[in-house]
Amino acid sequence: MTKPIKAFIFDVYGTLFDVHTVQEKCEEFFPEKGETISQSWRQKQLEYFFLYQVMGKYRRFPVVTKNALHYAVKKHGEEITQEQSDALMDAYLHLDHYDEVEEVLGKLENYERVVFSNGTPETLTPLLEHAGLTDYIDDVLSVDGIKQFKPSQDSYLYALDQLGVKREEVLFMSSNGWDISGAKNFGFQTAWINRNRLPVEELNLEPDKIYEDLNGILEWIEDK
Amino acid sequence: MTKPIKAFIFDVYGTLFDVHTVQEKCEEFFPEKGETISQSWRQKQLEYFFLYQVMGKYRRFPVVTKNALHYAVKKHGEEITQEQSDALMDAYLHLDHYDEVEEVLGKLENYERVVFSNGTPETLTPLLEHAGLTDYIDDVLSVDGIKQFKPSQDSYLYALDQLGVKREEVLFMSSNGWDISGAKNFGFQTAWINRNRLPVEELNLEPDKIYEDLNGILEWIEDK
Repeated sequence: MTKPIKAFIFDVYGTLFDVHTVQEKCEEFFPEKGETISQSWRQKQLEYFFLYQVMGKYRRFPVVTKNALHYAVKKHGEEITQEQSDALMDAYLHLDHYDEVEEVLGKLENYERVVFSNGTPETLTPLLEHAGLTDYIDDVLSVDGIKQFKPSQDSYLYALDQLGVKREEVLFMSSNGWDISGAKNFGFQTAWINRNRLPVEELNLEPDKIYEDLNGILEWIEDK
Repeated sequence: MTKPIKAFIFDVYGTLFDVHTVQEKCEEFFPEKGETISQSWRQKQLEYFFLYQVMGKYRRFPVVTKNALHYAVKKHGEEITQEQSDALMDAYLHLDHYDEVEEVLGKLENYERVVFSNGTPETLTPLLEHAGLTDYIDDVLSVDGIKQFKPSQDSYLYALDQLGVKREEVLFMSSNGWDISGAKNFGFQTAWINRNRLPVEELNLEPDKIYEDLNGILEWIEDK
């Protein structure tokens, strides 16, 4: 809290929305494997983002997410049909948002509120619409604008460039430890929304603040 | 098998050596959690390599590996002492090699045989020495020479530059799907040693050949 915050940047998947909402549909298609497939899906999706970035390649979010799904299903000894694949990808557009999201966003109305995600506009916009959150978000920023995934420095710089503020005037929020580490590495002020009570990543890039949900970030606003 | 192979590059961790040899010692220190801690340790170690590379940073293998260990222990609700940490890091220098490694390396004696790893010389050399494999390896190549982790293109280019052969004259072998994807992306011929019977990574970078252990690669030599 070294400087007043002018813009609040929210990560999307895991931070505003629960990526494991898809577990129920996974369970329907793959009985007794819903949880493990859902977890492997998410883990593989993240790994593929990192790998593509390390290899100097870019693939759009829906492609990476579908490929990760297919890997996860095969890893657990199952096969997936075209219909099941389509249904699960559609479920990813209807994830549940966390309980406090609307109220917290509402209280930030005097600030710039944007989301910034490895997702693309075609996945982020319907997700926010279905959740009724579009009125609370001033801009939807996607790595697709620069085709570099988070947590690369270029990706955060791209987001910053859309805002017209200084990097230390941004509070960046994510539930993903790797994302918070990247944002801290770039120079944003950071709040880790540690929904899963995990240890701080051992990357020597500690978050400025840690909260159990988004309510904690309200201490950063001046007109609360 | 489009071109004769002149050099065989072996990945080390997971490919020649079983990284889960440390499980026993983990179990000794953290009863009933040896397996999960060992798995989380390896997974976090890989994630940290990828994240540092994406963030444009480099940290040496022993640092990353120790930090990943500490994270894994905390994640599973345990605490680690200095002595335990030192003992587990030392165990990483005494991993078991897979059964067939010596015999297969022996049969490649007319070719250039090198290892190439995210490890550093200070971790790789004692590992190979303890296993009695130094006579079978012509050179120990480490990403530390360029300070870029695999699977970045620069890392594989660095390894190639040490060899004096063309990239398509190299057979690159790894048990790690991400490493094979990276090597394929770079242009090596690739053999995935699929020890854990996993699905092929869904990255559109399929290996040229898949074997269940290293014996399969002997079909690439002309004087077998």
